[in-house]
Amino acid sequence: MNTFVIGYHQTQFGELWNKSLFDLAQEAVHGVLKKTQLEHSQIDAIFFANMLGGVLENNLHGGSKIAEFLHVHIPVYRIESACASGGAAFQLAHTYLQSGSKKTVLVVGAEKMTDVSPEEISEALISAASGEEQESGLTFPGLYAMMARAYMDEYGYTHKHLAPVSVKNHKHAALNPNAQFHREITEQDVLNSAMIADPLHILDCSPITDGAAAVVVSNDSNVVKKNKSAHILSSHVASDTISLLNRSSLSSIKATQIAAENAFSEAKLQRKDISVSEVHDCFSIAEILAMEDLGFWKKGEGGKRISQYETMIGSGGNLVVNTSGGLKAAGHPIGATGIKQIGELYEQLTHQADNRQILHAKYGLAHNVGGSGGTAVVTILGN
Amino acid sequence: MNTFVIGYHQTQFGELWNKSLFDLAQEAVHGVLKKTQLEHSQIDAIFFANMLGGVLENNLHGGSKIAEFLHVHIPVYRIESACASGGAAFQLAHTYLQSGSKKTVLVVGAEKMTDVSPEEISEALISAASGEEQESGLTFPGLYAMMARAYMDEYGYTHKHLAPVSVKNHKHAALNPNAQFHREITEQDVLNSAMIADPLHILDCSPITDGAAAVVVSNDSNVVKKNKSAHILSSHVASDTISLLNRSSLSSIKATQIAAENAFSEAKLQRKDISVSEVHDCFSIAEILAMEDLGFWKKGEGGKRISQYETMIGSGGNLVVNTSGGLKAAGHPIGATGIKQIGELYEQLTHQADNRQILHAKYGLAHNVGGSGGTAVVTILGN
Repeated sequence: MNTFVIGYHQTQFGELWNKSLFDLAQEAVHGVLKKTQLEHSQIDAIFFANMLGGVLENNLHGGSKIAEFLHVHIPVYRIESACASGGAAFQLAHTYLQSGSKKTVLVVGAEKMTDVSPEEISEALISAASGEEQESGLTFPGLYAMMARAYMDEYGYTHKHLAPVSVKNHKHAALNPNAQFHREITEQDVLNSAMIADPLHILDCSPITDGAAAVVVSNDSNVVKKNKSAHILSSHVASDTISLLNRSSLSSIKATQIAAENAFSEAKLQRKDISVSEVHDCFSIAEILAMEDLGFWKKGEGGKRISQYETMIGSGGNLVVNTSGGLKAAGHPIGATGIKQIGELYEQLTHQADNRQILHAKYGLAHNVGGSGGTAVVTILGN
Repeated sequence: MNTFVIGYHQTQFGELWNKSLFDLAQEAVHGVLKKTQLEHSQIDAIFFANMLGGVLENNLHGGSKIAEFLHVHIPVYRIESACASGGAAFQLAHTYLQSGSKKTVLVVGAEKMTDVSPEEISEALISAASGEEQESGLTFPGLYAMMARAYMDEYGYTHKHLAPVSVKNHKHAALNPNAQFHREITEQDVLNSAMIADPLHILDCSPITDGAAAVVVSNDSNVVKKNKSAHILSSHVASDTISLLNRSSLSSIKATQIAAENAFSEAKLQRKDISVSEVHDCFSIAEILAMEDLGFWKKGEGGKRISQYETMIGSGGNLVVNTSGGLKAAGHPIGATGIKQIGELYEQLTHQADNRQILHAKYGLAHNVGGSGGTAVVTILGN
């Protein structure tokens, strides 16, 4: 059954002091319904991705809260897979449509993160790690720093090989009006910025962000033909151990490798067929590992290749990565991130990406990770 | 596509001081895998229902935590719809299998509720209500008390018409070794017990419970034929406004009515075809409203009919309700509840319910509610 993304809307990503979690969700939902010119009655179900509503503001049962503002009685499911909540919700919605009993669903992700102190948000985020990791005082910068250290040691890189990820993604975000940051930075800026968890400086880390994003997915040909559409060729979720301790390697993410193999296999595509990709750059090291684990680059060559800026807009390379600005510079409102990745590919594949538009983009890949790699989602879209 | 429940396992429900959330989930998962004699490699995906892990113990990303103890890399989805999390996870798993790409999935629900103070658990539970309801100081007993008061006023009942729900369900729980309570009670016990939120006494209220429950669902004929099975005839989720304030009636739950209509319609059955049902009796009034909203009883006659004990084991009635003891007396470990309801029907329909066994049970119905009715799930199984 052929299923398509037929519309996308996101809120501004950033520090949105005057908007609540459900203000943001509502803005994204109403925005995408308006763009697709769909009546509420044409939506068969809603998938809602959110990680921290319960922990940060005692705000659960979001399905019913969405049903309230939309005045609908359809199923609304809340999905939580830490930072992969959006990707998992999208993949589940896609599979749901394959059942044949439903035709058009809405997937919305939202997160409200800036209303609490840095200590509170750090503690809430570490809920996505193992109990032992929590108890040992680790934070997510700490976990990814260990992965970065392992990778650098194994392949002979230094932290200057990580910095180009942030430089590139800030350059892209400067072209994206919805991004949290619009300021370009240099490698030296990254290396001069405050150290968070050696070797990760603050400019190696994605920010704390408020925001929401929504897509409509449909296999109803009457609905699809009225909108610009991107074909969902495959979408796969894979899992791994929650603890880094129980992994065979710290310098790769097995869940990404498995999800990518399954996604490329189902889509019947080669890595070289992908010309635009949104990958999960929660930290600079994460984009490098992602590029290798997705099979775009050989294991160990990431540090070198990222430094050549071949995945930057305007580089002339075959594959441009994180045209939205990525998590690093577009921002990382957790539940929204996986949906924004799909939305960015949709805009690229349907030529609605304005200043960021990649020419001749035929296939796009989105890659969303939960925690330190306990969950990964890989989705391939075509135009 | 014909899909079946092929196995069930639950932990003891109760105050389980020495077991954690994932100890409980693990026990239920390993139990059902053992009973169905399935290898881990035969499970294609897992749906995990849990409401409060994040709020109570900063414990999110449970999908990866389950992948860790099972040593699997398959998708594991966490679903949260407040007290309907288990039912929603089951319904989603059922729909997932209709996609045809997966054959056998495991659905596990778990909740760990007794490690915190009564004040903390009350505050956590009210996360499933609207912001205005939270801010006004309401609790769930308070919300259901308003519904009870509206129902009693509308149809001329007093609180003694609610008490038979608890009496019946305690009697059933006394026959269920996994139930939290094994003590039979009288109507007078209910009316003499401490008042929580007028007209609801403490014995009108379901308890705080730890526990987990797991079912395996499959459409793989090779797997199905090796196990006793119950056929899933239909499963539907419906939503309503989160706020009581925005509902047209306080004395019925519209989401239940819609889910029931859809479930009976798809199953092509009449109400009279159902001989065993697990309904959502979080409070005594809730079972009465459920019986009416599901269409078993006419609107307004519930107070009278429950007092005749026609739905009690041994009454000779055509429909027996909450043979497990219901939420009231088997216990209500939130994420597990919707799965336990399915499991109880499975055991009844496959003649594994021991002392609680209903003779000649051909069709069973499970009814799971989130919050004050913002979500409802109705599932019909056949033998």
